[in-house]
Amino acid sequence: MKKIEHIGIAVNSIETSNSLFEKLLGTPCYKEEEVASEGVKTSFFMTGPNKIELLEATKEDSPIAKFLAKKGEGIHHIAFEVEDIVAEIARLKEEGFTIINEIPKKGADNKLVAFVHPKTTNGVLIELCQEIV
Amino acid sequence: MKKIEHIGIAVNSIETSNSLFEKLLGTPCYKEEEVASEGVKTSFFMTGPNKIELLEATKEDSPIAKFLAKKGEGIHHIAFEVEDIVAEIARLKEEGFTIINEIPKKGADNKLVAFVHPKTTNGVLIELCQEIV
Repeated sequence: MKKIEHIGIAVNSIETSNSLFEKLLGTPCYKEEEVASEGVKTSFFMTGPNKIELLEATKEDSPIAKFLAKKGEGIHHIAFEVEDIVAEIARLKEEGFTIINEIPKKGADNKLVAFVHPKTTNGVLIELCQEIV
Repeated sequence: MKKIEHIGIAVNSIETSNSLFEKLLGTPCYKEEEVASEGVKTSFFMTGPNKIELLEATKEDSPIAKFLAKKGEGIHHIAFEVEDIVAEIARLKEEGFTIINEIPKKGADNKLVAFVHPKTTNGVLIELCQEIV
């Protein structure tokens, strides 16, 4: 794991929360992106070497909509940048972690991503991500 | 906010979770520290420029014990490193955020810390921290 690439935060409204996080972090949102396949709209903030990603659901049956319905707004996942996502998935499987996406998929922000199930990581949803070059 | 200094994760047992996070992050715990005033035992892992902090309650009425009783294991807070914690508290108050510790207090890992109430930050408990030099 090279660093915390970003922290994903589930919000009811990107518009409202962009304004809140601009004030909190003292920096403007620098990108918005919709990932239709995940039923999600995202926005990004830079804090030094790390990012904050806000996530708003665009479909009622999307993972973010379900998270918001169950837990309300709050931290959804931690994403770690990795050098080689395929090798890292294999390493974590070998260590006994449950990988949700054994084949990495295309996520927001030009990344290949895979999630590790929170039941094997102390209730923390972990994303592995690798920049697509 | 200079960067994500660490993410705090509430766990039932530091001993069990140290082993889990060593496997997950591929790096050993490099420090354990008890903060008696907060009723908490902590352990730290380095991931590039960021840290993961595990938090185990040592008292039944501590904030971490209450969090675990209510929500179970999982992400407890995000800590941002700031240049000047007193100035940052003043700036955030001015922006309308609710500051839990208007006077910074001594936290783990040789830091002055102050928390921002999650009711004003989309349900996310935010810690500001500044290295004590």
